[in-house]
Amino acid sequence: MTKVRFHCSTTLDGYMAAPNQTLEQPFGDGIQGPLTDWMLKQRFIRENFGLGEVGEDGPSNDVIREAQSNIGATIMGRNMFGPVRGEWPTEAWNGWWGPNPPYHTPVVVLTHYAREPLVMEGGTTFYFVTDGVESALTQARAAAAEDQDILVAGGANTINQFLAAGHIDEFELHVVPFLRGEGERVLVGANLKLEPLRVVDGGEVTHLKYRVLK
Amino acid sequence: MTKVRFHCSTTLDGYMAAPNQTLEQPFGDGIQGPLTDWMLKQRFIRENFGLGEVGEDGPSNDVIREAQSNIGATIMGRNMFGPVRGEWPTEAWNGWWGPNPPYHTPVVVLTHYAREPLVMEGGTTFYFVTDGVESALTQARAAAAEDQDILVAGGANTINQFLAAGHIDEFELHVVPFLRGEGERVLVGANLKLEPLRVVDGGEVTHLKYRVLK
Repeated sequence: MTKVRFHCSTTLDGYMAAPNQTLEQPFGDGIQGPLTDWMLKQRFIRENFGLGEVGEDGPSNDVIREAQSNIGATIMGRNMFGPVRGEWPTEAWNGWWGPNPPYHTPVVVLTHYAREPLVMEGGTTFYFVTDGVESALTQARAAAAEDQDILVAGGANTINQFLAAGHIDEFELHVVPFLRGEGERVLVGANLKLEPLRVVDGGEVTHLKYRVLK
Repeated sequence: MTKVRFHCSTTLDGYMAAPNQTLEQPFGDGIQGPLTDWMLKQRFIRENFGLGEVGEDGPSNDVIREAQSNIGATIMGRNMFGPVRGEWPTEAWNGWWGPNPPYHTPVVVLTHYAREPLVMEGGTTFYFVTDGVESALTQARAAAAEDQDILVAGGANTINQFLAAGHIDEFELHVVPFLRGEGERVLVGANLKLEPLRVVDGGEVTHLKYRVLK
């Protein structure tokens, strides 16, 4: 049975990005290091991003490896796909991740602007869906094998839409020890009862995993 | 060396209270059970509130006993002291807690409306301070022994003011497995680097303790 999941790195006050997101600092001011440094040290991420196989092999590596396993299709918001806003000016922007993105699945990109599918190396194909979250979810389910999960990759606004609509079955927060106070916050606008699945103390990051009760 | 601390029960999305707070439901709609049920089961709380000594004696009891230990003075916002707003209509409202409140320390109440100190049983005296958080903190420090801590008891708005002003040294969140989506949120408006001190898995509640780095 397919689960719809997300996992994300967030400050303790729920921020996944700060103001002033640009091409050079896609997470905005003063937050990229706290949110991503711990993750880029993990062996699984280093292997998957081609950063070399040296990396940490502790509890956070196990968490991130599990979170990225058994994914049949990925969904993301357009702002996670890239900094381009409005009509696609050219089709030159192919995502942040180079020719071989770390998804290796069909990736449904939520956008208001149509674009032809974009086939990348390594099994990643970006499909641009313009008719909303329900349609994106239907297309992701159709693309994934029956026993594989759908990952809502981000950003915060996309996760919040899926959560508030009751589409999320499970999620895991990677909580980093910062309060940011402003930016894009996750877990906004949902009224849901949860079941704690586990807590993993990763030292500089705390992993909190929940099931959504329906 | 006196530390200024807070600890609070919060939903995973940071809410300490929901809309529609009244005398009958001081936490607002649909949130009091999730926030307080786990706490009212703990042996330490049952003893301290006169609910009987039967209670749970597990990791959450240890956490709450520690959090309530070594407190020399308490600070709270007026809305935590009671539902009365504006001028004190009579002085009949003496807090939610009966003749022997569970503080057993001087309690500085932040308010815009002056009132004479209110001496209760068991060592609790409420002092009403009308000139802001700095003054409240100064008075709380003066009232506490040098080796005892100041507890900022709540509510969310009062905690947020102390946090944003850089006055908090340590805090612990008791995170309950709910998303509430609206109400009074804690950890709002601060931009601070933290150090994780510990994570305690209490089953239905997760305790996250941090030091504020200065």
